[in-house]
Amino acid sequence: MRKDIRITHYALRISSMQKLVECIPNFSEGRRQEVIDHVAAAARGVAGVRLLDVSSNPDHNRTVLTFVGPPEAVADAAFASTAEAVRLINMEEHTGEHPRIGAMDVVPFVPLTGMTMDEAVQLANQTGKRIADELRVPVYLYSAAATTPARKRLPDVRQGQYEGLKESISTPERKPDYGEPKMHPTAGATAVGARPPLIAFNVNLGTTNLAIAKSIGKALRESSGGLMNVQAMGVDLAAQGMVQVSMNLLDYTKTPIHRAYEMVRVEAERYGVPVVGSEIVGLVPLDALVGAADFYLRLTDFSRSQVLEARLLEEG
Amino acid sequence: MRKDIRITHYALRISSMQKLVECIPNFSEGRRQEVIDHVAAAARGVAGVRLLDVSSNPDHNRTVLTFVGPPEAVADAAFASTAEAVRLINMEEHTGEHPRIGAMDVVPFVPLTGMTMDEAVQLANQTGKRIADELRVPVYLYSAAATTPARKRLPDVRQGQYEGLKESISTPERKPDYGEPKMHPTAGATAVGARPPLIAFNVNLGTTNLAIAKSIGKALRESSGGLMNVQAMGVDLAAQGMVQVSMNLLDYTKTPIHRAYEMVRVEAERYGVPVVGSEIVGLVPLDALVGAADFYLRLTDFSRSQVLEARLLEEG
Repeated sequence: MRKDIRITHYALRISSMQKLVECIPNFSEGRRQEVIDHVAAAARGVAGVRLLDVSSNPDHNRTVLTFVGPPEAVADAAFASTAEAVRLINMEEHTGEHPRIGAMDVVPFVPLTGMTMDEAVQLANQTGKRIADELRVPVYLYSAAATTPARKRLPDVRQGQYEGLKESISTPERKPDYGEPKMHPTAGATAVGARPPLIAFNVNLGTTNLAIAKSIGKALRESSGGLMNVQAMGVDLAAQGMVQVSMNLLDYTKTPIHRAYEMVRVEAERYGVPVVGSEIVGLVPLDALVGAADFYLRLTDFSRSQVLEARLLEEG
Repeated sequence: MRKDIRITHYALRISSMQKLVECIPNFSEGRRQEVIDHVAAAARGVAGVRLLDVSSNPDHNRTVLTFVGPPEAVADAAFASTAEAVRLINMEEHTGEHPRIGAMDVVPFVPLTGMTMDEAVQLANQTGKRIADELRVPVYLYSAAATTPARKRLPDVRQGQYEGLKESISTPERKPDYGEPKMHPTAGATAVGARPPLIAFNVNLGTTNLAIAKSIGKALRESSGGLMNVQAMGVDLAAQGMVQVSMNLLDYTKTPIHRAYEMVRVEAERYGVPVVGSEIVGLVPLDALVGAADFYLRLTDFSRSQVLEARLLEEG
């Protein structure tokens, strides 16, 4: 009801959105804690950067950092952590289950509030050039930063892995985007890119029949005729007596959470199976939740700057 | 899908929620811009405080400030703006349509992230005592800070308004909670309280029949047997060819947005009328939107600290 009492509204200083970008570097060490600490500390040490997560997998022998901040600070932190990974990791001795091409394997930039994808692509270019120039590590641009369609997908960039790329890097089609066409002797190569935030979203079904989850996964995923920007598979949650459609939403701005949820629900109905729950794994941008509330509550003209906490992140 | 790769999770420093409180002082000047500016500047001038909104209504001759920050800073800003209102506004000359008892009429504290209602009540007590001690303005505690049931509701505290309270303040039942039982000669008295955030939520119906909106408003509101913590009424939106159920949700933590929305939808169905949209007027706490997404997507174990922007507001 409050609207009617707000007749005269005196303009405050126009507050513009603070530019925020996320960076999720993956480096090739998941076992030696002191190396992991050094690489993480290099990112954390940059003023303005918030290190939100450090996740290591010993089997993959790989660690994922998640940090957020203003563009220049995040680019500095990406470079600083890459420099530490290059200094401390010897790919000639590296083993692990996860595909990789270098000590710092992949550096994706994800535009958050106030940032466009084009700006994130620029950041990837600046950082890639700096890694090649100062660390002598050849760099491939991928995803939205890719210079050719053949480098859009990370698996294509990683083809042959570290060992194979040592041979093929001198061929024209594998020529790096920045740096000389030869591997760093111990640190290999690095992929640097820009992409939308990924949302890991799982929907649980009230059945133990894994075939149903697999069938719905197939119906959902882009690669088999489902929703764009969605990866999906059926997973058994035997201990919980249910199955799950496990999804990655690769671009929630085009294919939002509620669309994936509703399509799972409708497909499950065809088998007489109810949705019994869902989960978001890890972090989710506020806009993705606002989108869901917007859809279900049929909100008109709702803006994220009406969310109190979002207002607090705007520049004063 | 990301969960399965997060096998080892190295603990970052435990980050605790930054304590944030909102304050929405209402003061008795909505016409003289220089007075409004002085009172607003007093709040804005306190380090750590973010002034989010200044809304004045000349007919009410009243202005509402909205600011947010850590508890001590917000208490200082509440006191500083009260001191300016007391200095610049003479209630002996004040006219306006809105009920009021003083130059600074009412100062509500609203607990946001990391704050309990008890802590907001403490803040109301500290601030009320300081206003009485230093400005010689008698203070009534109301809402969650009220010391007797008769002072819970603001209209009861404001009974008789400035003019009437001058007479009745010396009676035992109107004795102030802080300060002497006599009005400040020009600034009157002030109500200081603590309450949950109010959400102004309106649902639009695809009909021009105002009687239906009024009937649904009656079904919804607490006072006529509807939902707790909900004020509701039917409103004609003639220019847009529809009617609206206009609501204040007084405590979304107990009576969430989706419950009000679904009840309007179900009541409208009985008349064969569709919901054609809804709106949130002004600011809404992130938790209220997370609650709606949570309900409709059947999220299990979702926490607000998974919202990237909320993480950025946590202490490092």
